Amino acid sequence: MKKVGIVMGSDSDLPIVSKAIDTLKEYGVPFEVHVYSAHRTPVEAKDFSANARKNGFGAIIAAAGMAAHLAGAVAANTTLPVIGIPVQSKNLGGMDALLSTVQMPTGIPVATVAIDGAANAAILAIQMLAIEDADLAARLDAARKAGADKVLAKNADIEAKFNNLA
Amino acid sequence: MKKVGIVMGSDSDLPIVSKAIDTLKEYGVPFEVHVYSAHRTPVEAKDFSANARKNGFGAIIAAAGMAAHLAGAVAANTTLPVIGIPVQSKNLGGMDALLSTVQMPTGIPVATVAIDGAANAAILAIQMLAIEDADLAARLDAARKAGADKVLAKNADIEAKFNNLA
Amino acid sequence: MKKVGIVMGSDSDLPIVSKAIDTLKEYGVPFEVHVYSAHRTPVEAKDFSANARKNGFGAIIAAAGMAAHLAGAVAANTTLPVIGIPVQSKNLGGMDALLSTVQMPTGIPVATVAIDGAANAAILAIQMLAIEDADLAARLDAARKAGADKVLAKNADIEAKFNNLA
Amino acid sequence: MKKVGIVMGSDSDLPIVSKAIDTLKEYGVPFEVHVYSAHRTPVEAKDFSANARKNGFGAIIAAAGMAAHLAGAVAANTTLPVIGIPVQSKNLGGMDALLSTVQMPTGIPVATVAIDGAANAAILAIQMLAIEDADLAARLDAARKAGADKVLAKNADIEAKFNNLA
Amino acid sequence: MKKVGIVMGSDSDLPIVSKAIDTLKEYGVPFEVHVYSAHRTPVEAKDFSANARKNGFGAIIAAAGMAAHLAGAVAANTTLPVIGIPVQSKNLGGMDALLSTVQMPTGIPVATVAIDGAANAAILAIQMLAIEDADLAARLDAARKAGADKVLAKNADIEAKFNNLA
Amino acid sequence: MKKVGIVMGSDSDLPIVSKAIDTLKEYGVPFEVHVYSAHRTPVEAKDFSANARKNGFGAIIAAAGMAAHLAGAVAANTTLPVIGIPVQSKNLGGMDALLSTVQMPTGIPVATVAIDGAANAAILAIQMLAIEDADLAARLDAARKAGADKVLAKNADIEAKFNNLA
Amino acid sequence: MKKVGIVMGSDSDLPIVSKAIDTLKEYGVPFEVHVYSAHRTPVEAKDFSANARKNGFGAIIAAAGMAAHLAGAVAANTTLPVIGIPVQSKNLGGMDALLSTVQMPTGIPVATVAIDGAANAAILAIQMLAIEDADLAARLDAARKAGADKVLAKNADIEAKFNNLA
Amino acid sequence: MKKVGIVMGSDSDLPIVSKAIDTLKEYGVPFEVHVYSAHRTPVEAKDFSANARKNGFGAIIAAAGMAAHLAGAVAANTTLPVIGIPVQSKNLGGMDALLSTVQMPTGIPVATVAIDGAANAAILAIQMLAIEDADLAARLDAARKAGADKVLAKNADIEAKFNNLA
Repeated sequence: MKKVGIVMGSDSDLPIVSKAIDTLKEYGVPFEVHVYSAHRTPVEAKDFSANARKNGFGAIIAAAGMAAHLAGAVAANTTLPVIGIPVQSKNLGGMDALLSTVQMPTGIPVATVAIDGAANAAILAIQMLAIEDADLAARLDAARKAGADKVLAKNADIEAKFNNLA
Repeated sequence: MKKVGIVMGSDSDLPIVSKAIDTLKEYGVPFEVHVYSAHRTPVEAKDFSANARKNGFGAIIAAAGMAAHLAGAVAANTTLPVIGIPVQSKNLGGMDALLSTVQMPTGIPVATVAIDGAANAAILAIQMLAIEDADLAARLDAARKAGADKVLAKNADIEAKFNNLA
Repeated sequence: MKKVGIVMGSDSDLPIVSKAIDTLKEYGVPFEVHVYSAHRTPVEAKDFSANARKNGFGAIIAAAGMAAHLAGAVAANTTLPVIGIPVQSKNLGGMDALLSTVQMPTGIPVATVAIDGAANAAILAIQMLAIEDADLAARLDAARKAGADKVLAKNADIEAKFNNLA
Repeated sequence: MKKVGIVMGSDSDLPIVSKAIDTLKEYGVPFEVHVYSAHRTPVEAKDFSANARKNGFGAIIAAAGMAAHLAGAVAANTTLPVIGIPVQSKNLGGMDALLSTVQMPTGIPVATVAIDGAANAAILAIQMLAIEDADLAARLDAARKAGADKVLAKNADIEAKFNNLA
Repeated sequence: MKKVGIVMGSDSDLPIVSKAIDTLKEYGVPFEVHVYSAHRTPVEAKDFSANARKNGFGAIIAAAGMAAHLAGAVAANTTLPVIGIPVQSKNLGGMDALLSTVQMPTGIPVATVAIDGAANAAILAIQMLAIEDADLAARLDAARKAGADKVLAKNADIEAKFNNLA
Repeated sequence: MKKVGIVMGSDSDLPIVSKAIDTLKEYGVPFEVHVYSAHRTPVEAKDFSANARKNGFGAIIAAAGMAAHLAGAVAANTTLPVIGIPVQSKNLGGMDALLSTVQMPTGIPVATVAIDGAANAAILAIQMLAIEDADLAARLDAARKAGADKVLAKNADIEAKFNNLA
Repeated sequence: MKKVGIVMGSDSDLPIVSKAIDTLKEYGVPFEVHVYSAHRTPVEAKDFSANARKNGFGAIIAAAGMAAHLAGAVAANTTLPVIGIPVQSKNLGGMDALLSTVQMPTGIPVATVAIDGAANAAILAIQMLAIEDADLAARLDAARKAGADKVLAKNADIEAKFNNLA
Repeated sequence: MKKVGIVMGSDSDLPIVSKAIDTLKEYGVPFEVHVYSAHRTPVEAKDFSANARKNGFGAIIAAAGMAAHLAGAVAANTTLPVIGIPVQSKNLGGMDALLSTVQMPTGIPVATVAIDGAANAAILAIQMLAIEDADLAARLDAARKAGADKVLAKNADIEAKFNNLA
């Protein structure tokens, strides 16, 4: 199976990014984690991206905050699909990171997920790998069903608590 | 090769969506286009999505404006990767569609591209299909290089025009 | 009397939604509470909505955060009036939920209240039921008057505290 | 059948409001239209609202732009359900009118629809009247179905145009 | 001297409004404080406003949050100058209150100060009263000078602390 | 009667500002108009402001766009009441000018009106002058009544056009 | 004299950027113009930036729209001062480009000017070069004075037109 | 070496501004710190700015919040490069200060850094001074390299922690 690359712009993003790591582990999808900054280590960020396909990666997740250029900088150096996680910093509620990540010019897309949406970034990467992997797709379907069951269990609790009072 | 599904919430989105269609044609990637509304034809939107994987789709692009639920509604019914195009309507510059598309809850990601970013939605879908398709990846690389060459040609024009004046 | 349906996208919305429950109880209006997610349990959300009128509901309140599609997904499957509560999540101050709830396309309205405005959602539902229920309307008028009296009592306190100092 | 009241803050709102009028006519729902300004004719706005229930109204639609207080001012003087249409003016894309209409304090809800969403305001009013009017509800269901059919016809056109090219 | 009226939409606004009260006290300007809600006690709000000029008021300060209609509702019923304080509530950082207060239609201005800017509202009211009151103007000038001196004292502290290190 | 000073940051603001001029002329209130830029002619802006009270001004209106500092710069140099008109420029819908004008620090208020709200700026200035001028106040009341009558005439037109159709 | 480098992300930015070119010409400051895209030609953008200091540049101006990474990408590869021009594109009024340009992480500043503020970008570059160039500083002062004189001439026109009417 | 001037609008800005002071100390760049308010001490702010060049300053950093006019007020009185730090206050996440600082009119640029971006303001000032100071430029390059090494060390930690688990 191809690997998923995870890059974050700063190790301060790890509390957010760890949800992506956990999700990939749950699915047994191989991954690598790196701290590369689009601005502080542009050479390493570029080298990782430019060689990612031949190094066995199938998709790359990039997380960054503020003027969040990392996902775009990765995407500029590979034609692998790149998934961007806008990370909220202390100002502006993450709107800066969201717009910096999603508003990419024609030719260089970044698949953007919600602000701080690291678990979804991992699921999206797994969905990409599952396009040609029926087993992985089946696990996604199972997890989706488990998610639904969890909601329905919560629903049963809420119904039991409130609906006989009406 | 797996197909790319394109759904739009209204045929008024076609001028935007047509750039996705054109891009898929350029790459020779098979596709289907549909008009399904998350709100006006929820059953058809759901049926299309729920059956998309078994009907040979590899990824789905969904375009909608305002409270743009279409991509999310598709994503709720498939574990294929779903790409959302927020479409600008007359108010709010597309911010409503962007937030409605990208801020998805955990478990149900939508790979969101820029407002009106239909060409990039298609490229992203192709990138997903190219994970396991070296030929398609090569065409993406070639197109990327052609894009760079186009910029460099423009650069040459601009340099010729301005730099001898300095 | 017709029932009011309350659906929330996640049981984490309960602290907000409970103000709607409390308000309906105060008025003695029958209600049911459910946890249905537009994205995680779309089938149950749809089934509830599609059958709501024949199951004795007169209005449905839907609460959700982020890309808050729940109210719209309910509204897509019933012609009962649907009231949307945009729930604030940790980013963006609830603006994402507000726009995702209110900016509905023509044909499928959602009666949107303020961010986290669950008490008002319940009052609005009661106002709808009171259109043809003079007794319920009288209770709304009485509560309105009681609300005014409460403000006037506060006013008396403030006047007593400050105005003799001027 | 109870009437729907339509008030607009200025006759310059008529091009927007006329879509509400047309929709009510289509359904044969009786209505009255008035120009009352929360700021310029507060007495008339109040008198209309305070007497609306006894004058046979079942719901009131209020349309205004900028610091759009009209819906709130109406709601402050009646316990009938009040539907607010935020009208876009030349600045800020209607965000001012949206927030001024929707962010109402506890006790005085305004059922807010999309910016310039006059047709939906009328449909919402009809949905309220249809809670206890099975015939009107049936017409809403029929119109909903017709709306779906229109989308499906557009879908057929789009499918015919594009899908045989794939 | 004419009085300054202070109205707040809810006594929960008192912690903000108290800075206006304190400022008026400092200047010895007579004032009255009231809690009147544009939505919950519209009659009292109107009566106060409509009679304010003849009751000896020279200016009115109105503080409210969310869909902050109070200043506009007061202004609709008097031609005295009305000063609006947008009060921040828990969502949206006060942007809702700001736009609801400042974006008034032609003919009914509200002199809007900063979000939570109660002290400035009082100063503005005093400035209005001082147009024809040279003594009060002199006190404003003195306070302005004192404010400058305070900044310059802080400047001296900072200069002493940092500038000998350079 | 004291004069109203009108300053604009650029003569390109004149189409907006002319509505303030027209309003002051209607009321026969003496005024002066100047083009002073907070940034390009700070000395002249300061001199005008610092001498305004002794030169017979009662209030100053300042109009500017973008990082609209003019009203604040005037207010920093006088204790006369200063009214700020945020002028919309081609980007951001005037939000930049609004925030730059209204969010003043404690001690230096600017009475801010709506974006491009020049007529209201003039009315607000007249209201200030009318605090101690019963004749001017009477004219404001008459104009207010005329404004109401105009709305009621429009209302009569609309009622005649639509309400006999219901 | 050191040169000013101007890079734009696309030749479609030229109508904006040309104001920077014109300004540099007016001052006789040597410059070079290039089209380099952070995303489409990242290698060229990097090479230009990394070699800019040794190639005789003193400052670099970078203009880009949407997720405007160009200024940041340049800044990541040089310690010359980099000036960013956020360019408005058709959505969001340039807010995306502004936040993507200005919200840079610690260590890698971008000196950001107003949306579409190309003339100011050039003036800022000239101000930087003038720190150690008294002649250039004198020309900046002269231009500043000429700008003031132009405002004062406009002021004279406006005063002549309006003030004798008061 | 020329000095860097640091001015803040209030000593409450010191916790933010101190990062600029620390950075300048690290580089051994001479500086002066002052508290001057554009609104409370406009004369001192102007005098400092107008004399800054002849007093040996090479660049000025100005920090302010809300309607942050300080940087613009300084820039209006000098042709030295002025760097603006928008400081977040309790409302609006610093968006008010950002727009008030960056959206300057043609002729009077302010080199704006991120909200609360004081360290970057200092680095930018140093970059300006380094244009003609090869030694200072070398120190900037060394610091840049040290910053990169720090990221790479973090990267090594993260790689060691996570990548052998994949």
